[in-house]
Amino acid sequence: MSVLQTDLYTLTMADTFVRHGRDDLVSFEVVFRRLPAGRSWLMVAGVHEAVQALVDLRGTADELAWLRADGRFSPELVARLAALRFDGTVWAVPEGTCVPAGVPVLRVTASRVQAALVEPVVLSVVNYGTRIATTAAEVVTAAAGRPVYDFSLRRLDGPAAGVETARAAWVAGFAGTALPEAGLRHGIPTVGTMAHHAVMGHGEEHEQDAFAEALADHPEGTALLVDTYDVERGVRRAIAAARATAVPLRGIRIDSGDLAAEARRARALLDAAGLAETEIMLSGDLDAPAIARMVADGVPVDGFGIGTRLRSGEPLGAVYKLCAQHDTDDPELRHVMKRSPGKETDPGVHQVTRRSGRDGQRPAVEHLIHLGHEAIAGTPLLRPVVRRGTPVAAALDLAGARAHAAAERRMVEAGARFVPASRSPQLMALRDRLSHPAALSPRDALVVVDVQHDFLPGGALGVDGGDLVLGPIGRLLDAARQAGATIVASRDWHPAGHVSFAERGGPWPSHCVAGSDGAQIHPALDLTGATVVDKGTEPDVDAYSAFDGTGLLELLRERGVERAVVCGLATDYCVRATALDALDGGLRVLVVTDAVAAVDVTTGDGDRALDELRTAGAALATAP
Amino acid sequence: MSVLQTDLYTLTMADTFVRHGRDDLVSFEVVFRRLPAGRSWLMVAGVHEAVQALVDLRGTADELAWLRADGRFSPELVARLAALRFDGTVWAVPEGTCVPAGVPVLRVTASRVQAALVEPVVLSVVNYGTRIATTAAEVVTAAAGRPVYDFSLRRLDGPAAGVETARAAWVAGFAGTALPEAGLRHGIPTVGTMAHHAVMGHGEEHEQDAFAEALADHPEGTALLVDTYDVERGVRRAIAAARATAVPLRGIRIDSGDLAAEARRARALLDAAGLAETEIMLSGDLDAPAIARMVADGVPVDGFGIGTRLRSGEPLGAVYKLCAQHDTDDPELRHVMKRSPGKETDPGVHQVTRRSGRDGQRPAVEHLIHLGHEAIAGTPLLRPVVRRGTPVAAALDLAGARAHAAAERRMVEAGARFVPASRSPQLMALRDRLSHPAALSPRDALVVVDVQHDFLPGGALGVDGGDLVLGPIGRLLDAARQAGATIVASRDWHPAGHVSFAERGGPWPSHCVAGSDGAQIHPALDLTGATVVDKGTEPDVDAYSAFDGTGLLELLRERGVERAVVCGLATDYCVRATALDALDGGLRVLVVTDAVAAVDVTTGDGDRALDELRTAGAALATAP
Repeated sequence: MSVLQTDLYTLTMADTFVRHGRDDLVSFEVVFRRLPAGRSWLMVAGVHEAVQALVDLRGTADELAWLRADGRFSPELVARLAALRFDGTVWAVPEGTCVPAGVPVLRVTASRVQAALVEPVVLSVVNYGTRIATTAAEVVTAAAGRPVYDFSLRRLDGPAAGVETARAAWVAGFAGTALPEAGLRHGIPTVGTMAHHAVMGHGEEHEQDAFAEALADHPEGTALLVDTYDVERGVRRAIAAARATAVPLRGIRIDSGDLAAEARRARALLDAAGLAETEIMLSGDLDAPAIARMVADGVPVDGFGIGTRLRSGEPLGAVYKLCAQHDTDDPELRHVMKRSPGKETDPGVHQVTRRSGRDGQRPAVEHLIHLGHEAIAGTPLLRPVVRRGTPVAAALDLAGARAHAAAERRMVEAGARFVPASRSPQLMALRDRLSHPAALSPRDALVVVDVQHDFLPGGALGVDGGDLVLGPIGRLLDAARQAGATIVASRDWHPAGHVSFAERGGPWPSHCVAGSDGAQIHPALDLTGATVVDKGTEPDVDAYSAFDGTGLLELLRERGVERAVVCGLATDYCVRATALDALDGGLRVLVVTDAVAAVDVTTGDGDRALDELRTAGAALATAP
Repeated sequence: MSVLQTDLYTLTMADTFVRHGRDDLVSFEVVFRRLPAGRSWLMVAGVHEAVQALVDLRGTADELAWLRADGRFSPELVARLAALRFDGTVWAVPEGTCVPAGVPVLRVTASRVQAALVEPVVLSVVNYGTRIATTAAEVVTAAAGRPVYDFSLRRLDGPAAGVETARAAWVAGFAGTALPEAGLRHGIPTVGTMAHHAVMGHGEEHEQDAFAEALADHPEGTALLVDTYDVERGVRRAIAAARATAVPLRGIRIDSGDLAAEARRARALLDAAGLAETEIMLSGDLDAPAIARMVADGVPVDGFGIGTRLRSGEPLGAVYKLCAQHDTDDPELRHVMKRSPGKETDPGVHQVTRRSGRDGQRPAVEHLIHLGHEAIAGTPLLRPVVRRGTPVAAALDLAGARAHAAAERRMVEAGARFVPASRSPQLMALRDRLSHPAALSPRDALVVVDVQHDFLPGGALGVDGGDLVLGPIGRLLDAARQAGATIVASRDWHPAGHVSFAERGGPWPSHCVAGSDGAQIHPALDLTGATVVDKGTEPDVDAYSAFDGTGLLELLRERGVERAVVCGLATDYCVRATALDALDGGLRVLVVTDAVAAVDVTTGDGDRALDELRTAGAALATAP
């Protein structure tokens, strides 16, 4: 593939990766999230084409010149692309494997620039190959042993798709293709009959001449196309032409009309003429259900040609998702998970293990998705197909893929049920941990700021809606205890006549005087296991942050805490100050937005404080 | 294109053409017979790709070696293919033209080998380009002036279709593509935003960092993708990133969720931040109806990205049909017509002339299909795009196609009605003449054999079912008179005691004695204008054929008759003999199978006689 055979944004992003030194090792996985209606499996193909594209990744001189002239790309990027060769590793399920929705079928592990650049091409060929193989496998099953041939070239989205189409259909069990190019490239058997124009060129009165010529020139077995004018007459002329030329009539093809009825009539005529060996091939808008009906009805047919309907229907929608960043030690960034509802991805690098069982009388096929390092009994499906830029020939062997697909088809034909894919407990735990930003781990500290009576409605310095934080903070406390996170609760713990009070020229009324009722943390919060830190305890020193003069940072460092999850009162003062100090102290910070409240919601100070925190590097999220 | 990028049968047929010296000049036309449900026009594209493929037609060394090694092809064919360069002529409607069903949109006139070989590729690219342009034109109309971009690469049937897709969409009015390769090949503007993984790589807490990087590296206008986690938060972070980097926020993109609702929320946030100029781009499974709804609902959106649905839906089914064989003088073979019911084609080489009119208040667009040599007022649509192998650059100009498509789109947007295509009287007459083999012309002679009382049921030598021929023969007589064909009626006109009678040892009872009632032609047949010839008039000479001793052949030659259309009684004796004599006399012969009857249907003699005639070169057909 060419470096320009991508979406422009992969180049602009690559530019950024290169400029910022972030061309690190990452993994992307290809997953069919959903299957088309009515399907419980897809037969995977297109892996060969994906590997080919990766291995051929190049920028030619005119392509690099275009990038240079465009003006949007840095010289560093262009230099990088000029030297680019794919040196990554790819794992994939063997072509011909039937998989349920949701399992990774291919993984690219490569430098970020390479892995991002190839996304559209990898998706295109895996989506397409898999769609063709799946349709073809169904057709082969429907044909119940009769050969099926690929006649699709003229119906494809451009002739370049021809070889891939023929190959995917061949993997799935087709007996050959009409495309000579696929014969050359992959050794797939090629077949051909004749076109209507070869008959029309002679005129209706001389249809038999057209047949006689075709037989004489290709005695090895051209199937005569008998439906240009009238099928019955065509069959009689085919018989006559075979007699006249003394060439055995290997086959006839019928491409229009009521195929079943015409096939029966043709069979009767052929048999009456002593040509019981002459085969009848049918084509023309055939698909698996139509073929299955003919077979069930005992229509005398010996083979099928599939064109239009080999590639009809909607394209598949596999996605290619970043799942791991190998060069980071940050556990949140190492295993990458997309959390959008309905579009969640599995974090980490995976293996898929197949296990066979029974579902009552039916065979059942189970697929377990798990982390790559887990040892699971069964057959692992993902195997290396490219190692550090070099294809693994054995994994891409065409005959092997075809044999494997045949075994898979037999399993389906035996009535096997595809159980929806499941996930290992370790993977589920990782998903849970990453599925919400406010989900807590032992490396987190939950910092509950100043949820004291005086800051709650009715208190000396009551915050509007301050009581609304009690529910979310309660949930956070429970979660933190469960996760083994550090729990910290801060208090304003002022001496009487504190410097911040109005009586001394400060901005606030007297509040949270040490030991007073107003200074008590609201009893709805269960502080079991919490470390309470008091601040503003010096009469002449003001302090908003829970880190200010409390030794909290040292405490968290001792415990190996990496992230402060901050909640409490009030957003625009003590929460803000605490979060900023945590960032300054080198911690990552998450502010839980429904577990904080601002002094006065009408001023917008609370929103501005959150904006400021975000800009400073804090994450914002709601409570789990 | 490669000589192997075809259906195998074009090669086996080419082999036959080459061996038999029939690589003569022929024309094929591409026609969309039917349009998809709900459409009254298609916007034609893919012509450029067809021309490119033709001009690039080549056989490489490995391809020719494959042909040689295959064993099915003659050395003459391989030599021919090795030297093959397209030197034919192609006419096409300008890309971007909207056409109704049934009109020829492209014609290839070339040697038979060339014209046949390129069929699959020509069909594939014209079908595909036209499908994309038609969908794209509808999307552009729906977007009502907002730019639309091609994001389809990853959803295509292989990446090789990317450039053609981008080009067809650009012709139809798209504002650009995400595919850099299309920028290089055709100068189409390329656009890109950013991918989810560029954000996910930073982690949710640092979404703003991802935005800031993208803005700083590409201040010329990357649209920030704001829906990786939460759209509202994403928009706030995009605004913050623009502030932090002091780079103007040119645009944001939303790719998931309720696009209309998210766009409204995003617009409000942007406006509140003073970013009224920041554009909102939407993408994600959008098609023309969805876009039209958003526009009608006043959703604040400034542009659309189209991926999956640019190429969804069923492929178009254009056909490529032989319409003319230029090197023959035989009028039946010169203009080729396919007559299969429902699949009729227009014989001859055509032009399509557009005429604009009104349908009440609506503009109406009419397309007349006519023979190429007819002078018809209006705008002829088919124009040369390749002359004797050389592309006509002006006819393939991309900017011209885009401007033309814009005019066509405006016509559609103005409510123009596409009247179903009509045919000129001359073309209709040619269709009529060729539409049935038994249709008659002034160069035909209708020969009605012996429909005499004695051969009809109840007669001395009554033929089973002989009366069933009266209806078809009556119709043939009417048609012959209308067409100005020669009409001949033959009679057995024996002297009493004729040598063929049983009384003299002959095979037959006494019959058709000259002047007797039994010798009269059935009065239901109107013989106005017919020449009656009598045979078997010598007592000692038997005669079955209407040509035998009657001077009929000389008569027909004098009148310039080229074909004898034979009907009457009985198939296995006088009809057979008459038809064989006509063939011997150098005439073409058509036997009208429902206007003949055999002496005894149980023996199969009638069928055998028809087989014999067919083998001898006669055509068989039923009466019109």
